Amino acid sequence: MSVAVGKSVPRIDGREKVTGRAVYASDLKLPNMAHGKILRSSYAHAKVVRIDARRAEALPGVFAVLTRENLMSGAPFYGTYIKDQPIVALDKVRYIGDVVAAVAASDERIADQALAAIEVEYEELPALLDVDAALAQGAAMIHDENPARKDPRYGYGASVVRHDATNIFYHFHYERGDVERGLKESDRVFTETYYLAGAQHYPMESHVSVADDRGEEITVWSGTQTPFPLRQEIARMFGLPQSRVRVIVPYVGGGYGAKSGVKYEALTVALSRLAQRPVRLRVTAEETFKTLSDPSAKVTITTGVKNDGTFVARRCEVYFDGGAYANSGPTVTERAGYRAHGPYRIPHVKTDAYCVYTNKVPGGAFRGFGGPQVSFAYESQADTIARALSIDAVELRLKNLLDRGDLYTAGNIPIDCDLKTELKSVAGAIGWGEKSAPLQKPGVRRGKGIACAVKDGGGVNKEANAMVQILIDGSGLLFLGSVEMGQGVRTALMQVVAEELSLPPAKIQVAPLDSASTPFDRGTHASSAITVMGQAVQAAARDARAQLLALAAELFEAPAERMKLADGRVSCGGKEASFAEILRRHFGDLEGEITGRGRYKVERRDDAPLGYPATFWENGLAAAEVEVDETGAVKLLNYVSLTDAGKMINPGHCLGQEEGSVLFGIGHALHEELVYSAGQLVNPTVMDYHLPRFRDLPGKFHSIIVEEGGGTGPFGAKGIGEGGTLAAAAAICNAVYDATGVRVYHVPLTSQRVWNALAEKSGKRGE
Amino acid sequence: MSVAVGKSVPRIDGREKVTGRAVYASDLKLPNMAHGKILRSSYAHAKVVRIDARRAEALPGVFAVLTRENLMSGAPFYGTYIKDQPIVALDKVRYIGDVVAAVAASDERIADQALAAIEVEYEELPALLDVDAALAQGAAMIHDENPARKDPRYGYGASVVRHDATNIFYHFHYERGDVERGLKESDRVFTETYYLAGAQHYPMESHVSVADDRGEEITVWSGTQTPFPLRQEIARMFGLPQSRVRVIVPYVGGGYGAKSGVKYEALTVALSRLAQRPVRLRVTAEETFKTLSDPSAKVTITTGVKNDGTFVARRCEVYFDGGAYANSGPTVTERAGYRAHGPYRIPHVKTDAYCVYTNKVPGGAFRGFGGPQVSFAYESQADTIARALSIDAVELRLKNLLDRGDLYTAGNIPIDCDLKTELKSVAGAIGWGEKSAPLQKPGVRRGKGIACAVKDGGGVNKEANAMVQILIDGSGLLFLGSVEMGQGVRTALMQVVAEELSLPPAKIQVAPLDSASTPFDRGTHASSAITVMGQAVQAAARDARAQLLALAAELFEAPAERMKLADGRVSCGGKEASFAEILRRHFGDLEGEITGRGRYKVERRDDAPLGYPATFWENGLAAAEVEVDETGAVKLLNYVSLTDAGKMINPGHCLGQEEGSVLFGIGHALHEELVYSAGQLVNPTVMDYHLPRFRDLPGKFHSIIVEEGGGTGPFGAKGIGEGGTLAAAAAICNAVYDATGVRVYHVPLTSQRVWNALAEKSGKRGE
Repeated sequence: MSVAVGKSVPRIDGREKVTGRAVYASDLKLPNMAHGKILRSSYAHAKVVRIDARRAEALPGVFAVLTRENLMSGAPFYGTYIKDQPIVALDKVRYIGDVVAAVAASDERIADQALAAIEVEYEELPALLDVDAALAQGAAMIHDENPARKDPRYGYGASVVRHDATNIFYHFHYERGDVERGLKESDRVFTETYYLAGAQHYPMESHVSVADDRGEEITVWSGTQTPFPLRQEIARMFGLPQSRVRVIVPYVGGGYGAKSGVKYEALTVALSRLAQRPVRLRVTAEETFKTLSDPSAKVTITTGVKNDGTFVARRCEVYFDGGAYANSGPTVTERAGYRAHGPYRIPHVKTDAYCVYTNKVPGGAFRGFGGPQVSFAYESQADTIARALSIDAVELRLKNLLDRGDLYTAGNIPIDCDLKTELKSVAGAIGWGEKSAPLQKPGVRRGKGIACAVKDGGGVNKEANAMVQILIDGSGLLFLGSVEMGQGVRTALMQVVAEELSLPPAKIQVAPLDSASTPFDRGTHASSAITVMGQAVQAAARDARAQLLALAAELFEAPAERMKLADGRVSCGGKEASFAEILRRHFGDLEGEITGRGRYKVERRDDAPLGYPATFWENGLAAAEVEVDETGAVKLLNYVSLTDAGKMINPGHCLGQEEGSVLFGIGHALHEELVYSAGQLVNPTVMDYHLPRFRDLPGKFHSIIVEEGGGTGPFGAKGIGEGGTLAAAAAICNAVYDATGVRVYHVPLTSQRVWNALAEKSGKRGE
Repeated sequence: MSVAVGKSVPRIDGREKVTGRAVYASDLKLPNMAHGKILRSSYAHAKVVRIDARRAEALPGVFAVLTRENLMSGAPFYGTYIKDQPIVALDKVRYIGDVVAAVAASDERIADQALAAIEVEYEELPALLDVDAALAQGAAMIHDENPARKDPRYGYGASVVRHDATNIFYHFHYERGDVERGLKESDRVFTETYYLAGAQHYPMESHVSVADDRGEEITVWSGTQTPFPLRQEIARMFGLPQSRVRVIVPYVGGGYGAKSGVKYEALTVALSRLAQRPVRLRVTAEETFKTLSDPSAKVTITTGVKNDGTFVARRCEVYFDGGAYANSGPTVTERAGYRAHGPYRIPHVKTDAYCVYTNKVPGGAFRGFGGPQVSFAYESQADTIARALSIDAVELRLKNLLDRGDLYTAGNIPIDCDLKTELKSVAGAIGWGEKSAPLQKPGVRRGKGIACAVKDGGGVNKEANAMVQILIDGSGLLFLGSVEMGQGVRTALMQVVAEELSLPPAKIQVAPLDSASTPFDRGTHASSAITVMGQAVQAAARDARAQLLALAAELFEAPAERMKLADGRVSCGGKEASFAEILRRHFGDLEGEITGRGRYKVERRDDAPLGYPATFWENGLAAAEVEVDETGAVKLLNYVSLTDAGKMINPGHCLGQEEGSVLFGIGHALHEELVYSAGQLVNPTVMDYHLPRFRDLPGKFHSIIVEEGGGTGPFGAKGIGEGGTLAAAAAICNAVYDATGVRVYHVPLTSQRVWNALAEKSGKRGE
């Protein structure tokens, strides 16, 4: 019988969080701590001619004004894949919101006054405000020399194409078969272009870092998703060995990709170095909008099919508006490119995905990581094809979907779930094939849509380590580098330890996350924690258990194989002893502990387009029923999502993750859009940026989580929490088409876009 | 050539401390933190009849008033060996300063006001103010039932004698041979009784704890010397598994034994539990005086000798005034008893050592740990014997001292240094046998004295664990539970890692001390860290090195034995690679680390009087030259100390430790004394309590540190830092005798005591 796995054990951080006792970076107060503020560019692209900080420095209460003049770092550029972003502007600024200077002062009010006293002289340059402008013949280079050229090792896969004299900073290429021949041999060829707006993560906690540079040692507190890569970057930039840089992660109020890699940590360290005291820098929600976004995308997809619906060839071209700095754009692009042809059996495939510098807020990691952009395209087009061939949209997909055990590409693990059965479940749940209920209002039309997508899971997390201790009183302590940012990962992995040790969850605690004590991990992203870290945790728990059983075997004078574990006790024959008794017999009352260690490592594969196989396949299926009125307003009547968790470690958390993920998908499909005007992001507040609210929830909303047991994680678990973002936009657009007969190629489906499409179809023109 | 060991590498905490950036518990500020204050008893012994906290609770800004009425702990008693001390007074108070109640308020001023508003009604009981009163026929029991009876396992050795219906709470007994027969067979028998006043540790940092009880989890920040035993006690008292109690040790401003075991941590947790918020409690220096002291002692020593000076038999009786609670009194008593006969070849020995409850400040661990008390007695008596037999005092000792390799008792490691040669060195350095320089002033007399003592080193620290990581950039990280309290232990053990890995010290950092990440350790006391933890650290470093060499062997395709390490690089034949290159080749640029682990464990020995062998022998030799004037004032003209470090890991630190330790010895010999009047400690401030100042330094002061290589620590190292306390009182008293012909049996040697002795000899009587 299960001790903990499969149970909705309450979160270990729940009580702290609901009682307000949980400590976030913003709550930290260090002795003599100064407060930081940032001066940002109001130009999209300009040379910085002169900076004069003297008036600001002279203000009482100002400890330091950081500019390019006094930057005490030998390596002031950072970036997860391309080191192209300086701590503060050096030669020029590259977007409205770019960091020009920063102040550390005795309080935030004085820091604000000091910002106003910094004089900056700019020389404006032509701004490149979209991908077309940036790729136009003769366009200026946003980075004078393409910094991607300098890095010999960026990107994992072999599928990287280099571009020197353009603003393209990443190009992924994949092909198999002969796509030109495939298209020629097809009965019908469909080409469409889809557009997706940029979006904002909007974590409830904005970026906050606290840094204490003490010369020989630096400590950084940050709500980061990647404590160890952050340690590596800070060490490199400030010239210290990694052992002298300590990254501590308090609770994190949401990440969604926004908190990967360096954000403001290096700036805060530089301020602390200059001010010679600890500095806390917390940016506003508006500044968070100007830090990182989900990049807007343009996806052109061409599919050749036989008249019976069989897919023959697919050609994909993906362009991301990468903004001013590369950030994790390269991997987002790589993954989007790899996922662009969808989970179908297609003999001939060719994909190119590009990420392009523009003078806008940098783009990068975002829940779904390139997946939602391409699945919007291929699952919308599946609908187009089905209608053109008069084949049912579900039937068309069933004809072409990969089966469990099939290879998505060479060099990867096989598909680990039954997509066809899943698709039928979703179709059944929405009442596929049944007519929508009769309408109350004239001019209002209803329709249903469906979509099915997958995403290779585990991301770049190819190594994880964990440690499990059994203390002298028989309680357990788990050390892991996975960041708790609301998803419940530390509770779920504690449950894995509880299960392996047969120890009640209340007796196990998860140690705080501190790079100076936690075993190495690559970061918390790509739904990787349960499968990647989970395997390390399980191995560590098993190592601890083996050590415990060896001591029990001594005590009971019987082989370890004969021992049984239950509820923190070991029994053998008629004898039994608690863990505490076994440990005390071995160590004495006051001493000792057992320490188990576990490591998980994915080995490189030369035949893998991304260099490594995935850890699992995350999937997202959805069916939607919508109502569209004459103004173009789209209302979600019913929404069904489905994902495969492999095995749910904590069903309550899984459901929360799936529902949250769906809401992200719905937000992007219907509401969320970063709106720029002349390079200025004009809606960087939740007053103007439409996050989904309770009233935006579908009238009926049901998430199905299946457990197909095929995951590589503990007990067959797979990662979860991104699947729901994949199918939403296509399912909803397909439903709108079903209702209205018009296809909207651009999400979010604002009523204006829908009305324009309706008008175009009926011969009227929208503005 | 040595990389780091044997070099005076600068302290890793040096810059932080001199720039004021180092964080101590007192510097911590947590969100919503309350401030604690303690209400203390003004009665030495009284029943607590009634406590009424309602007025105090009603004051604005008061969050909690903790009394026996609302103590939310199922096990409110604590104590390292005997659980006899309640968090706050339950039935009665037992000394002036005993904790009656405590307040948590929004600031310390309001907390003080609240203390004044607590009403307490006492019923006074007769106070037992010294050992004689406490042991008198019919004396009241200070603890109604002797709590020592309840604990089945207190003390390590077999040599524990139990007492039920007395105030004796610990009795150590040791004998070998037949002491009665030995005394009968002796030519001369000498019996003397020596007295030592109680003393105060006076760490520069008073006791400070911060506690955050969050119901399911407790975090305590404390400048404790024993983080893991503290975790164990807090878990037991507050009903949590140890995995849910976290003890973090910031920098510690001096310990000297005062900060072992629970001090105010449990009280602070109880306040936090009641106030439902974090609480910081920092006591004043005066309250630190009333927390723990070096217990006063009475030592009666009887020695039988042959006329040629050969020691035949020795009988020792030691009584400690243990104060109101046991604290570490049991082990202090055990060690004093074990050390009482001195490092001499004596066929017949019998020792009884007792610790007795009185209504005074509790006694317990103090630098030297019972050693200075008994060495004062046996080394003073060695002088008495030498003079009575007209044998030179150095010759008498040389005749009887143990040789290197001799056993002090059965069941212990042999003496690990050459005490005879050391004694000759000290004698030579003071000009033994040469007359003191001619005097300038009439009535002023000069003389020289010498003394030689040993102490079994390593204390109760029978297990230690450490971890050494090599990070991806080739830097090193050391995890250890030894507390940095000014002695430099973390720097010295970092040097051991540097040496084992041939890595520059600047590339190695020591991880912070946090029970939720540091491998288990028993505590930092008994000069144990270099030898006990040192062996664990060395083993961990060697484990890490072996793993590194295995990777290098793969890279160079050659056996690991052929690899050479130097300066963070491995070479083999003509090829070489940095640690970073080797790791990156194996793990990739962004991943992985090597983790080495080491454990040190002393096994129990049934023939050992203390249950376990020592880890090493710490020794302290001294010679003093004094000047005594007619008022009895003693002035130190010259002082030579000697100790054996085995091998100095960091010579600068060793010298600092030895000099500091000598100053403690001189302080106790000449100045320091806790003065009580009617149970009230009347000099609990440095205005009235005479700590040694710069002007109290000897006119000439020279510390000799020899390196005999016999230590069990890394590279032959032994512990250091307590030896200097051992011989000071006897060397100075012997010098006073040499100058004046009078022996003072009571330290400190205040001028009044010396004048009384002079007066008694000359027929005058002092008051």
